[in-house]
Amino acid sequence: MINVLFAAREERWPTYEATLKAAFRDKGLSVDLRRDFAPGDVDYIVYAPNGDVQDFTPYTRCKAVLNIWAGVEAIVGNATLTMPLTRMVDHGLTQSMTEWVVGHTLRHHLGMDRQILNQDGTWDPVIPPLAGDRRVTVLGVGKLGMACGRALAQLGFPVTGWSRTQKQDDLVHCLSGEAGLRQALATADILVLLLPKTPDTENVINAETLALMPKGAIIINPGRGPLIDDGALLAALDTGQIAHATLDVFRVEPLPGDHPFWSHPKVTVTPHIAAETRPKTASEVIAENVRRGEAGEPLLYLVDPETGY
Amino acid sequence: MINVLFAAREERWPTYEATLKAAFRDKGLSVDLRRDFAPGDVDYIVYAPNGDVQDFTPYTRCKAVLNIWAGVEAIVGNATLTMPLTRMVDHGLTQSMTEWVVGHTLRHHLGMDRQILNQDGTWDPVIPPLAGDRRVTVLGVGKLGMACGRALAQLGFPVTGWSRTQKQDDLVHCLSGEAGLRQALATADILVLLLPKTPDTENVINAETLALMPKGAIIINPGRGPLIDDGALLAALDTGQIAHATLDVFRVEPLPGDHPFWSHPKVTVTPHIAAETRPKTASEVIAENVRRGEAGEPLLYLVDPETGY
Repeated sequence: MINVLFAAREERWPTYEATLKAAFRDKGLSVDLRRDFAPGDVDYIVYAPNGDVQDFTPYTRCKAVLNIWAGVEAIVGNATLTMPLTRMVDHGLTQSMTEWVVGHTLRHHLGMDRQILNQDGTWDPVIPPLAGDRRVTVLGVGKLGMACGRALAQLGFPVTGWSRTQKQDDLVHCLSGEAGLRQALATADILVLLLPKTPDTENVINAETLALMPKGAIIINPGRGPLIDDGALLAALDTGQIAHATLDVFRVEPLPGDHPFWSHPKVTVTPHIAAETRPKTASEVIAENVRRGEAGEPLLYLVDPETGY
Repeated sequence: MINVLFAAREERWPTYEATLKAAFRDKGLSVDLRRDFAPGDVDYIVYAPNGDVQDFTPYTRCKAVLNIWAGVEAIVGNATLTMPLTRMVDHGLTQSMTEWVVGHTLRHHLGMDRQILNQDGTWDPVIPPLAGDRRVTVLGVGKLGMACGRALAQLGFPVTGWSRTQKQDDLVHCLSGEAGLRQALATADILVLLLPKTPDTENVINAETLALMPKGAIIINPGRGPLIDDGALLAALDTGQIAHATLDVFRVEPLPGDHPFWSHPKVTVTPHIAAETRPKTASEVIAENVRRGEAGEPLLYLVDPETGY
């Protein structure tokens, strides 16, 4: 019997209990899945960074911590975490992110807000350019970013992808490094932020990098709030350097009601809905990693403590 | 020398003159392109239904009328039109329509208006289903409809396409006939109208067909205004049978300022911007048809007067 502790928040238990049990069963694993064990009896921890476990020291037998979130920045620096940590790469989450990014890119490309916000009887046709004439840059072309970039390229957008390490793709023009970043920003009519949050990526969008973008560019951030220096973004919106920002993630969530993003006419706040882990597909990933752990095979989506993702 | 009369509206001449001449040159054709000829000297007419020529009788030598619009309903019934008529199938137009249809489908699928219209500081996450759980039906799977259907299917939507004659496609589930239409409507969480306007398709969306759709369905009409019985649609919006309609085309355009569509909270009017013929790509199609006409080859996109498209 394999003891698996469910250490995400209590309100997630009803959502995950049945799908996790089914996923373990489908892999032929004999698992005791519970919300409480003596720490020394736990083989694996199903984890979310906003759950209760912050000290991993008592979990002496634990073989791996399996995160159900894509983001791991709130746990990766935990000094008591001496066992392997995996992050979630969920098909449902990738799909959901792709739909949201493609949808909001097309919204800005087509200028939809003009009609959604102005149904006043004025017939005022403005024909947008074709997608082929609107350059999109995706900062961060890991699993999520590359899926979004490829979907946008398939619709006709010229897409540039930037990442710390050089990637290769047949649809997305890949850049890396400092010079690559400047080039990726200089051609970003629409910029999509999908970098992980690490010390290197915090405030990557600041006064200096905003000034490198084409005047009137659009920013879409479904990645992580701290990627953006909020004050620098507000200033760039006020000068018109940036025409609009659609933001799904924030330094503090829920975004406080008095934050200037809410009332700024050039900002759309969405309430962290771009990508949501889907219990069914996520449970399959967790179960596969428990199977691999038991078989001594390499775990999927293992986090590198050095890079932080 | 081949005499080609430009008979679209005068204001289109500056847009088309250079691109048409370049396209003829690229095909190796010696063409005299002008806005005035003695009618008996004209070999081909480049046409738009809102132009001046309505009586084709004096054009005794004319080998074909080459429409620069996709829609031909305003000319196909003209009794003086005894020469072949072609409609425009323009790559730019197909691309533009695909971007608009995919964009507005995702807008409704993701529930974007909720955020675009309500930036009041309320953090209210509503997670939409994945595209795989949102069924889209495209009525009319000709060149435009099929391109839209395939792009939506590539993003993960289950797409059904209906047309008068049965089509086949590897991504779009194709239906035809009366029973097929009922089935296509019954599974249309989002319905896209891209039928041509013919006597058979006028008011295809009426009280009876609206009642066949799932409660709370969305209608997107970038096709032709008369496909919809306006009064029946307004009634279905008021009962909630239809949750929202985004309409780009109307029986009268520009849509009069006092039309109830403008003020209805569940209707988005867009000013006929979904698909616009692009002069460069359209000129290439016109030139290719003049080349074919001169070489005695079959014309592209020939209109069948029986079916009306």
